[in-house]
Amino acid sequence: MTRGELQRLIEMIVQEMRAADLRQPPRCECHACRSECCPDRLRTVLDAGATRVGVHAIGGAPASVASMIDHTLLKPDATRAEIDDLCREAAQFGFATVCVNPVWVATARANLAGTSVGVCSVVGFPLGATTVDVKGYETRRAIFDGAREIDMVINIGALKSHDLRTVERDIESVTTPCRDCGIVSKVIIETSLLTDEEKITACTIAKAAGAHFVKTSTGFSTGGATAADVALMRRVVGDDMGVKASGGVRDLEGLKAMVAAGATRIGASAGVRIVQQASGSKT
Amino acid sequence: MTRGELQRLIEMIVQEMRAADLRQPPRCECHACRSECCPDRLRTVLDAGATRVGVHAIGGAPASVASMIDHTLLKPDATRAEIDDLCREAAQFGFATVCVNPVWVATARANLAGTSVGVCSVVGFPLGATTVDVKGYETRRAIFDGAREIDMVINIGALKSHDLRTVERDIESVTTPCRDCGIVSKVIIETSLLTDEEKITACTIAKAAGAHFVKTSTGFSTGGATAADVALMRRVVGDDMGVKASGGVRDLEGLKAMVAAGATRIGASAGVRIVQQASGSKT
Repeated sequence: MTRGELQRLIEMIVQEMRAADLRQPPRCECHACRSECCPDRLRTVLDAGATRVGVHAIGGAPASVASMIDHTLLKPDATRAEIDDLCREAAQFGFATVCVNPVWVATARANLAGTSVGVCSVVGFPLGATTVDVKGYETRRAIFDGAREIDMVINIGALKSHDLRTVERDIESVTTPCRDCGIVSKVIIETSLLTDEEKITACTIAKAAGAHFVKTSTGFSTGGATAADVALMRRVVGDDMGVKASGGVRDLEGLKAMVAAGATRIGASAGVRIVQQASGSKT
Repeated sequence: MTRGELQRLIEMIVQEMRAADLRQPPRCECHACRSECCPDRLRTVLDAGATRVGVHAIGGAPASVASMIDHTLLKPDATRAEIDDLCREAAQFGFATVCVNPVWVATARANLAGTSVGVCSVVGFPLGATTVDVKGYETRRAIFDGAREIDMVINIGALKSHDLRTVERDIESVTTPCRDCGIVSKVIIETSLLTDEEKITACTIAKAAGAHFVKTSTGFSTGGATAADVALMRRVVGDDMGVKASGGVRDLEGLKAMVAAGATRIGASAGVRIVQQASGSKT
């Protein structure tokens, strides 16, 4: 896609969304987003379905609460023992993946051999400010070590400097090797640092670059996922991409709000508590 | 150095410091460190010397306040215009370097051509949790782009898991290409996450790996530089290495406290204010 085509596509999406907003009732009070995006619109469905959620999942298949969660431990001082515990919990509860820093991918892969739990790792994390070729190299190394999913952080400074060609190349440096190897790629846009127009731009470029998911947050910035941001991202990428909500999802209520807004994957360090709450709510 | 030799060296240093502590008066009340490390011990010298500080500088040469400062902008949403401003200020005030994320090294280098200000960049930043080969690649890329100094973050999880061989390889992956290219290397140990014994271990390994500086903090963790930590690090590495204090140094008083404790370089985003305060204190 040329720069001109990309710019026109972003402008079309922004205009379309503005026009759609004019046709909508005012923002709901509960989540400060348009009523069609309000997380409450699907809350009754979720409450009725107990642990069966994932209404927006790729392919439309519903998923269990556990299988929507990337069981996450990204603090820099995590020890080998903590990574081992994380993997044990993931295998026990059936989380989608464990999400760990690159130095722990090989360890997690070995721990999870023979289970259905994948290893997710991060690239350019959490600032997104490494160069295009370093992100590509880091991606290939994580795949070599056994990562099945890669969550990369965009070049936020380039986006804010209106250098969209660099943003595009940056994302492609990860999505291309992921596609070549059959690996899931997620693009972290760090919503708390962006304007709505920048969020739309980043999601549009991520979709054009062939990413599988857009993801709200690193969990290391000024804020985490909000239902309004998830809803906005879902509107931009449509139904054929995943949206991962991460940062600040600490309980089942939080997960439900994100799923209702359009999330199909949740990044959380509180996965065990969430699954236990979901299990309790069924009884 | 073999693992056994390294372990014995660390134990010797710990024992020597414990024995020395027993011979010392109790900790000073002002900075909770031994009186020989108390930042106040050199405060009078600094006050007398106005802007001439750097009593611990490599080679013993005193330096101006500005030339001790890495003028730092590492927030992920920094724009090209902000990087340009940073470089302009650095050239105007004569800072040692501008410290920027990898994506801005080439831009900063171009901006600073013809000045005495170097470009410092970061590797494995800020979590330190990328693999050995990715850190090596990232280092070479930053040098290729024009970095004259590299600040790398150690593998904190490996240190806390007592995997010292990995910590050593991790640091060497940066110090070796830096040495090959005549580039200054600094090893960020992220003091706020470490016990005193872990700080001693990290500094010992950094010195053995041929780093030029040890550095306290990334500025993105739970705490920044303290005078007590700087003093401890200075005791471990001796007088032939640099110590960089970073994170939370916001004014001239803060800089003086760090220098008095043994710092020879300061990482700060408030460099202009500090230099202006120093200039004012001379009049």
